[in-house]
Amino acid sequence: MYDAITMKILKGELVEGEKLPSTRELAEKLGIARNTVVEIYEQLISEGYLETDHGRGTFVAGGNEGALESGLLSVQYPGGKGRHAGTGNRIDFMTGVPDLEAFPRKAWMRAIKESLHEAEDDLLGYGPALGYLPLRGVLSQYLMKNKGIHCSPEQVIIVNGTSDALSLIALMFQKPSGELMVESAVVSFVPDIFRTFGYSIRPLETDWQGLCTDNLPEAADGLIFCSPSHQFPLGGTLSVERRLQLVHYARERRHYIIEDDYDSEFRYAGAPVNSIYQLAPENTIHLGTFSKTLAPFLRLGYMVVPKKMSDGFRELQSNMYRRVGMHAQIALHLLFERNIYSRHVMMMRKRYKRKMRCITSALYNEFGDSIRIFGTNSGLHVAVAFPEPLFNAGSTGIFLKYGVSAELLTDYMIEKQAACDTLILGFGNLREDVIPEGAKRLKTAVCEISARQMCGDEL
Amino acid sequence: MYDAITMKILKGELVEGEKLPSTRELAEKLGIARNTVVEIYEQLISEGYLETDHGRGTFVAGGNEGALESGLLSVQYPGGKGRHAGTGNRIDFMTGVPDLEAFPRKAWMRAIKESLHEAEDDLLGYGPALGYLPLRGVLSQYLMKNKGIHCSPEQVIIVNGTSDALSLIALMFQKPSGELMVESAVVSFVPDIFRTFGYSIRPLETDWQGLCTDNLPEAADGLIFCSPSHQFPLGGTLSVERRLQLVHYARERRHYIIEDDYDSEFRYAGAPVNSIYQLAPENTIHLGTFSKTLAPFLRLGYMVVPKKMSDGFRELQSNMYRRVGMHAQIALHLLFERNIYSRHVMMMRKRYKRKMRCITSALYNEFGDSIRIFGTNSGLHVAVAFPEPLFNAGSTGIFLKYGVSAELLTDYMIEKQAACDTLILGFGNLREDVIPEGAKRLKTAVCEISARQMCGDEL
Repeated sequence: MYDAITMKILKGELVEGEKLPSTRELAEKLGIARNTVVEIYEQLISEGYLETDHGRGTFVAGGNEGALESGLLSVQYPGGKGRHAGTGNRIDFMTGVPDLEAFPRKAWMRAIKESLHEAEDDLLGYGPALGYLPLRGVLSQYLMKNKGIHCSPEQVIIVNGTSDALSLIALMFQKPSGELMVESAVVSFVPDIFRTFGYSIRPLETDWQGLCTDNLPEAADGLIFCSPSHQFPLGGTLSVERRLQLVHYARERRHYIIEDDYDSEFRYAGAPVNSIYQLAPENTIHLGTFSKTLAPFLRLGYMVVPKKMSDGFRELQSNMYRRVGMHAQIALHLLFERNIYSRHVMMMRKRYKRKMRCITSALYNEFGDSIRIFGTNSGLHVAVAFPEPLFNAGSTGIFLKYGVSAELLTDYMIEKQAACDTLILGFGNLREDVIPEGAKRLKTAVCEISARQMCGDEL
Repeated sequence: MYDAITMKILKGELVEGEKLPSTRELAEKLGIARNTVVEIYEQLISEGYLETDHGRGTFVAGGNEGALESGLLSVQYPGGKGRHAGTGNRIDFMTGVPDLEAFPRKAWMRAIKESLHEAEDDLLGYGPALGYLPLRGVLSQYLMKNKGIHCSPEQVIIVNGTSDALSLIALMFQKPSGELMVESAVVSFVPDIFRTFGYSIRPLETDWQGLCTDNLPEAADGLIFCSPSHQFPLGGTLSVERRLQLVHYARERRHYIIEDDYDSEFRYAGAPVNSIYQLAPENTIHLGTFSKTLAPFLRLGYMVVPKKMSDGFRELQSNMYRRVGMHAQIALHLLFERNIYSRHVMMMRKRYKRKMRCITSALYNEFGDSIRIFGTNSGLHVAVAFPEPLFNAGSTGIFLKYGVSAELLTDYMIEKQAACDTLILGFGNLREDVIPEGAKRLKTAVCEISARQMCGDEL
């Protein structure tokens, strides 16, 4: 039914403004559950095919007619071209990249266009130090509604992505013998950025549930980096107990916690948990990004800083004349204003949830009970633990030989190990229909890796 | 004639594709010099009103019809709304901001739109560490043609504006007791950025001809920041002799010169001079920006680094995951490819030349021979020296009282002085027709400042 409706719209058989049957009528007519129809309508509304006028019904939205011919929508249309469409291509289980095919090009383009038309000349200048104020305003509302974070727009800083936020924080807290405490497995640019600014790095024990909080070091004042909502790369969600323990620890010692909340928008199961920021707004710098919810090429992220620090951050940004491009900020503000952003995130959550289900079942299909999969409650990647430390630097080549790529946990460990038992598999930018084939290839590769190990063969 | 043609196009009286009379015909018909007609046609072509089809003639370009009604072109249309249009508004002689009304919104919009349509999904990702390679390619060609700089695309790095380039350089050369040598008068973010990264700042004597090169300090290896093509704020263009002296000095001591070439595109008089980079490509980091030639809100600039350093810069950018937004880079590449960028710069050069003439004659009109004006050969600002050190922190309020703002040289001095005799006046974002009124207001304000000083009145 989803395909039938979109095809009709794309071919121009259903035109703008045309009213659709009510969910009740259609369900009766087709003999299917009304809930199913409701869900499909919602999906089509979130994708911009349909519009709803509360009370009046559901209508075909404008701007999609003939899109199929013009090729405009090919990226969104299921079955369209894609890097991983053909089985001849490599299937990359790459982390950190969202579904680029699903980026709402049309809505973004419209927002970009309108924002430039409406912009006063003043907006073409350097822009304010902490970012476009209306965007920071809608963002503070969004954060309250969606993450339970109470903050004023003055505490919100727009940045060029998470790495930019980390540079700013590293500068802000810089001192002769600065130290960053960080989860022992982490994306490499985190320690690299802080090292560049002269910090020493102290890894903290981290397990499948996230940061281990019962034995934190007796450091004086300092900084702690963590990703409590979906630990990267291990996938754990920090429990309430650990959160409280961490917050208590930080408060007592006047530490600041850098909370990297890079993909909490995509939560599929389990009760929502409070952000660290909510628990300790005076001791937490909360980081978010639009690289996962929209696309990385926008280079847009945000940080929420404690009230008492916003003047300091403003001064630092001003002195260094750090600015984020205004055009994308103004357009993003429009996406928020029109609820397009929320709807897109909602749609993507469903899409990623399907992909998450797909990858877990594909992996269990191939590997059976021998593996354990972590981090399936949210986000765009999973950690897959094998019963033996099979993988080392040589494994990458064998994966590639079988047309697949996978990341090794050890590459994310601050204290790297020669061999490891865990793969990190990202699926955000993989089409659902290639994931099973990807799992098959992984299986073949792992078999070879395992066989070579058994024979004592040098990898 | 310019106004007549644009009005006809904007009102829809001349429509897309309509052929215009040849320059010869029109010149004869109107009884004016053919060169005048050629110049006006060229201007209109560069502004997108007309198109030329070599051999076939000149035609009305598409996309402008009815623009007058829709308000789309009001920003470009002379006499349109503008912050400084009414005499009730303050006239800001602000530096660093180009003519925002003249930003080619339509051409930019078209490039933005097409670039997104054509972009493969891959381009929506994080992008390469040093920037979009095709942009770096056209840029290296442009630099050879327009600045005589020979470099490969690998040496070109796209940055978020000059301040971003300086942060990157400061990181690259960071060491325990790093030092930046810098012109004694300079925009404040330069020393601020380097201080933030732990450098000490050593001001170098600078006069109306730019950096004084005959008595440079005996420092070991180090960094020198200068703006040789149009010293900011003093306005001087460094002579060939001084350039050679500086380059010789830097080579002998293995210094690196940071050449901030922020507005060399707008040169109105005098022979073109070699860039420092041309003279010492192994010892120079050349900085350019699109904030002046297009608009600051794009946050786009570039650096050209010595061949041997490009790997180091790439590694640093990669490790820190520093990236510049891709969308603007792809669109800018299109502007280069279609020659729109060059034409825009050419058009703006003429426009700014008129403004430069306007501000110098307006200032001489008001102040007569008592002042000296520096830096009129190029760029978007002048330095105006008065016979007495009239100005101090209190002067700003008096300027504002008379509806005008001006910058004081002392605010740009690394070692600030209590009083100064020089104003820095930027005119990039002022409409030509308000400049004379601005000069009048300056005169009234200066009279009051001077009178107060004579009476010993506390400012």
